[in-house]
Amino acid sequence: MIKYEIIPIGKIYTPYKRRYQVPRQTIYSSGVEGTIEIYKHYLEGLKGIERFKHIIILFYFDRIEKYSLIARPPGSDSPRGVFATRSPYRPNHIGLSILRLISIDENLLKVRDVDMLNGTPVIDIKPYVAELDKKQ
Amino acid sequence: MIKYEIIPIGKIYTPYKRRYQVPRQTIYSSGVEGTIEIYKHYLEGLKGIERFKHIIILFYFDRIEKYSLIARPPGSDSPRGVFATRSPYRPNHIGLSILRLISIDENLLKVRDVDMLNGTPVIDIKPYVAELDKKQ
Repeated sequence: MIKYEIIPIGKIYTPYKRRYQVPRQTIYSSGVEGTIEIYKHYLEGLKGIERFKHIIILFYFDRIEKYSLIARPPGSDSPRGVFATRSPYRPNHIGLSILRLISIDENLLKVRDVDMLNGTPVIDIKPYVAELDKKQ
Repeated sequence: MIKYEIIPIGKIYTPYKRRYQVPRQTIYSSGVEGTIEIYKHYLEGLKGIERFKHIIILFYFDRIEKYSLIARPPGSDSPRGVFATRSPYRPNHIGLSILRLISIDENLLKVRDVDMLNGTPVIDIKPYVAELDKKQ
């Protein structure tokens, strides 16, 4: 079977030390601040990011081991396929959140609306571009 | 160094057979149709996805080998850090597009606004949820 390797480009620090503290989505963590540390050798890759108000963070659910094809979204009455939910128990343990970029100091990005466990590995940052990413 | 393994959950079929044919972003591929094939053993994971108008596709740039921390976005006058662009030449070769979900037939999802090379591995599907994903 084909496999691809991915590596952390940094880490995100949040107030959530334990899994039960983590909000289920950023709508429930509005305003909560965190800090993304990008590893020094990727620093050049951040050039110009300050022009974006929001950034898309891909991260790795490093404390999730298994996955389940059926999930029960919070507040939903019926089980649903994992690809129709944002559950972390997915075949590939990749999470996505769109965060408000507050400020940048060298390789440290201060962000708002964090919903990850403290110390979660970050695997990509992409700019949020309304023309591409804003849908009905 | 820590590495994580990811696996394809399916493939996307598009009209783009060669790299130069691929539009630089979905704004330039509006309306172009493609088909996502989810591998049969993940079929259950699609249950309920038909309720979403748009889906977030994470895919693997499997024909990109290297990466560059500096990118020159199309139409831009100055080079920019790769994390401030959607360039495929990123440390982790993961792409993201938000596609219009047209119809579903078993493990085949017909989608619109595709911007990937034909045969690109799909690594995740997440529902697009305006409350989470729609920003200014």
